[in-house]
Amino acid sequence: MTAARRGGQQDRVPPHPDVRTISLQQVLEAVVDPVRRRIVGELYAAGEDLACGTIELPVSKSTATHHFHVLREAGLIRQYYVGTSRMNALRREEFDEAFPGLLRALMVERERG
Amino acid sequence: MTAARRGGQQDRVPPHPDVRTISLQQVLEAVVDPVRRRIVGELYAAGEDLACGTIELPVSKSTATHHFHVLREAGLIRQYYVGTSRMNALRREEFDEAFPGLLRALMVERERG
Repeated sequence: MTAARRGGQQDRVPPHPDVRTISLQQVLEAVVDPVRRRIVGELYAAGEDLACGTIELPVSKSTATHHFHVLREAGLIRQYYVGTSRMNALRREEFDEAFPGLLRALMVERERG
Repeated sequence: MTAARRGGQQDRVPPHPDVRTISLQQVLEAVVDPVRRRIVGELYAAGEDLACGTIELPVSKSTATHHFHVLREAGLIRQYYVGTSRMNALRREEFDEAFPGLLRALMVERERG
């Protein structure tokens, strides 16, 4: 693999903020959207990383991409590539440390069914 | 006290929803506003009911009234009158039962100081 190619791969990995630098305001603005809560809920329930395409959402692909972006910026998910698939990981431990109990409390919709 | 006067007093007590009928969506739309979180935080920290006028807010009186209204509709506070003072009570037990852990999680800003 050439340096240029490695560079290209790195460019595809988007930047991720340190969760400790994120405000509750930014987190709430992220999770107030029901589609974004659904993404978080799917990852929470799956207990494993999921490709964007495997999470069924009632929005267009470009809108979904925007929602994943907002969640990434709010420190809730980490994104990385496996081949051409963009994978999503819930940053559960880091998030729980910065915002104790919040993620679990937001899962009340899933628990109610 | 006449019947008319009693009726008048009752009219001044605004309606309060059953917290169990409120959606997480409505709650999040209420607490995503920092002024409303501040009101909830003041009541949480005070541990007692507070008159509207005793909670210092960086908004006009009519805007503050709107914020209290949104919190009441979202099941977070109960309002009642003592003389001419509109008092606010955090509906902590009922809310905790409907949304376990959420109120506490939202207090992270106060805990960080």
